[in-house]
Amino acid sequence: QARRQLHNLPAWDVALLLESSPPKARAIIWQLVDADEHGDILEELSEEVQKSVIRQMAPEKLAAATEGMDTDDLAYVLRGLPEQIYQEVLKSMDEQDRHRAEQALSYADETAGGMMNTDTITLRPDVTIDVVLRYLRLKGELPEATDKLYVVDRDDKFIGEIGITRLLTVDPTKLVSDVMDQDIQGIPVDMDETEVAKLFERQDWISAPVVDDENRLLGRITIDDVVDIIREDAQHSMLSMAGLDDDEDTFAPVLKSTRRRSIWLGVNLITALLAAAVSSMFEDILAQMAILAILNTIVPSMGGIAGSQTLTLVIRGMALGHIGQSNQRWLIGKELAIGALNGVIWAILIAGVVALWKQDLVIGGIIAFAMMANLLAAGLAGVTVPLVLKKFDIDPALAGGVILTTVTDVVGIFAFLGTATLLLG
Amino acid sequence: QARRQLHNLPAWDVALLLESSPPKARAIIWQLVDADEHGDILEELSEEVQKSVIRQMAPEKLAAATEGMDTDDLAYVLRGLPEQIYQEVLKSMDEQDRHRAEQALSYADETAGGMMNTDTITLRPDVTIDVVLRYLRLKGELPEATDKLYVVDRDDKFIGEIGITRLLTVDPTKLVSDVMDQDIQGIPVDMDETEVAKLFERQDWISAPVVDDENRLLGRITIDDVVDIIREDAQHSMLSMAGLDDDEDTFAPVLKSTRRRSIWLGVNLITALLAAAVSSMFEDILAQMAILAILNTIVPSMGGIAGSQTLTLVIRGMALGHIGQSNQRWLIGKELAIGALNGVIWAILIAGVVALWKQDLVIGGIIAFAMMANLLAAGLAGVTVPLVLKKFDIDPALAGGVILTTVTDVVGIFAFLGTATLLLG
Ligand SMILES: [Mg+2]
Ligand SMILES: [Mg+2]
Ligand SMILES: [Mg+2]
Ligand SMILES: [Mg+2]
Ligand SMILES: [Mg+2]
Ligand SMILES: [Mg+2]
Ligand SMILES: [Mg+2]
Ligand SMILES: [Mg+2]
Ligand SMILES: [Mg+2]
Ligand SMILES: [Mg+2]
Ligand SMILES: [Mg+2]
Ligand SMILES: [Mg+2]
Ligand SMILES: [Mg+2]
Repeated sequence: QARRQLHNLPAWDVALLLESSPPKARAIIWQLVDADEHGDILEELSEEVQKSVIRQMAPEKLAAATEGMDTDDLAYVLRGLPEQIYQEVLKSMDEQDRHRAEQALSYADETAGGMMNTDTITLRPDVTIDVVLRYLRLKGELPEATDKLYVVDRDDKFIGEIGITRLLTVDPTKLVSDVMDQDIQGIPVDMDETEVAKLFERQDWISAPVVDDENRLLGRITIDDVVDIIREDAQHSMLSMAGLDDDEDTFAPVLKSTRRRSIWLGVNLITALLAAAVSSMFEDILAQMAILAILNTIVPSMGGIAGSQTLTLVIRGMALGHIGQSNQRWLIGKELAIGALNGVIWAILIAGVVALWKQDLVIGGIIAFAMMANLLAAGLAGVTVPLVLKKFDIDPALAGGVILTTVTDVVGIFAFLGTATLLLG
Repeated sequence: QARRQLHNLPAWDVALLLESSPPKARAIIWQLVDADEHGDILEELSEEVQKSVIRQMAPEKLAAATEGMDTDDLAYVLRGLPEQIYQEVLKSMDEQDRHRAEQALSYADETAGGMMNTDTITLRPDVTIDVVLRYLRLKGELPEATDKLYVVDRDDKFIGEIGITRLLTVDPTKLVSDVMDQDIQGIPVDMDETEVAKLFERQDWISAPVVDDENRLLGRITIDDVVDIIREDAQHSMLSMAGLDDDEDTFAPVLKSTRRRSIWLGVNLITALLAAAVSSMFEDILAQMAILAILNTIVPSMGGIAGSQTLTLVIRGMALGHIGQSNQRWLIGKELAIGALNGVIWAILIAGVVALWKQDLVIGGIIAFAMMANLLAAGLAGVTVPLVLKKFDIDPALAGGVILTTVTDVVGIFAFLGTATLLLG
């Protein structure tokens, strides 16, 4: 009965159900799914969940599931396979499918080539619209998201496109070459998928042609696949900032998740030990005055928060293409100014709180000074750390937070305990 | 000359330039832009930047800029205006535009109504496809992203749709009612935009009809506007986690940014003081042993990192609809298990480091125990905090991090200094 219910769900809903299920339930659900739905569901699964499901499948079943898949989806599924399984799946395919599979995988992952589909309808420039209309009628159904037909010359070179709606409204006796848009540039097959997504967003495209470096038409990219990239890219920064993978499976087995997360915890333990080592330099004054130990965490914590705000804004700004050579200096100046202003505000406030709480004006002054210094450092580091990381081609979302909080911890502790040592030690 | 260069840029590029410019440059660029480009550029600007630009414009100019805008874009621009300016802009419009403006604003922001455009082409069910084709040819151009025509009855009730590509391939003597898809449900006009975006993603739609509660066709939503919502929603979590607004303008003036960020810093100062107050309860033992002060930050910091990883995953999982009643308990169990496992690993490691560094086995043991306890607390809080917040309708991305780190700070300090007091005090 569960099988019947599953059978009536659209592939997308089954995919959601699988992604929302712990490992055991996931395995059971997959066994209950109809074999001829396998392909449609695999397409929709996120990478990690897809892998966990594929691991249960025999190579022949996998080969059967990929039959008739669009090339982009085929590439997506096959890319997830371990080399050995991939070879066995290839063996189980017939000649034609094997050829299609090898071709789908011949383009690099995360490029236009990896996202494109080969289901383009092409026209010659020297036929009339009327002939095109009769050809389409003969063809019957058109591929999904077909909003344009592409015009190619004898060597398959891309020379223009015609919108479907234009076909409907134009004089049918005209030639394709008279009606087509000629100013269109195809997307280079090796363009990064993130760049492709930006183009679609900017131009409000529904589909776009993909060409090789000799301008030969290879296929087309459709908006539904671009939407998936946009979602992925937008989530990337947030997940990276927590040291997580883009496709992290919320319901992955405990051991697997533990192993992954321990790397990030290890990196952070090192930075925590570094901060402890800095405090350790001031053991003398800490031994004299326990109150310094109590207040020692406040300034680093505020610096970390202020710095993360700046860092987050800069990472987003870089992703959106807002930050470049021309405005970097202005931005550093701005964040320093915010740091100074917020520094004054919170220095006065914390000095007041400490003076009232611990009845100590001098320590109030010391913490105020440290707060000022650290919020300035936070603003400066918040802009410069991601810019420098990007120059070295390191993902600022992944490494930025760790480096930034190390800076604000060290500066905060030095400013607070160092000044205390000078004035009170 | 700069004016000429700007004039040759597409609206989208000018928008990007404005978004990437500090306030003064932004004002100058806007003055150089051709007045008849104003509308196209305003549409593309993010909310905050749009407001900063609109502030420079006289109401008559604004009224002129909105002439001929699609209803969804018109709503977007008008919604950004202060009430008084809005009234003046209305006054500067002619009768017809005023009516259109008032209608565009009659639907709630962030709903299907606010995203929809009224440029639908509707058909009657009892005409032949041939008549439809002739009607379209007469019409000339069709609205952008028109992939379907909608069929309505005499009362404007939505009864079906026909794909444009289907029009091209179907027998022209058939009736619209024979060819149309009838199983289609219109999007309710008050559906939240995030839900609308999910539907589009799931079904790979290019456009979809919007209906009122009596199923009357009101307009349609197109994928290009959905893409903007997807991007916005996906960025929302990351920005909220840093206490930032969705449309935060990277190049906003210093004073404005300082004011906004100080709220978040204030919230965090309170939590930092809370942690200090907890440490303060252990002043006696801190006064006796400075080494405890030095090591006191390690356990809270590791707890904060581990908890944020869980929190980030759960927030993403909730946004994707992966987490519900049925799997919450499994997830809590999983995160506790990860906490326990990572707890053991890092407890042993930190005990070793401390034993070697400070030559103190007892303190090594104490910090190991505190690490275990805090990583367990982090796993538990990482899952339960966002779930509880969501129940109270509080955005977990905004409040989750603050609450979580407060938990891990307090538990970490209590476990470390409390155990130390018991064993060494
Ligand atoms: Mg398919
Ligand atoms: Mg990518
Ligand atoms: Mg990918
Ligand atoms: Mg767009
Ligand atoms: Mg596709
Ligand atoms: Mg797809
Ligand atoms: Mg427009
Ligand atoms: Mg929203
Ligand atoms: Mg909005
Ligand atoms: Mg989709
Ligand atoms: Mg629109
Ligand atoms: Mg738009
Ligand atoms: Mg929008």
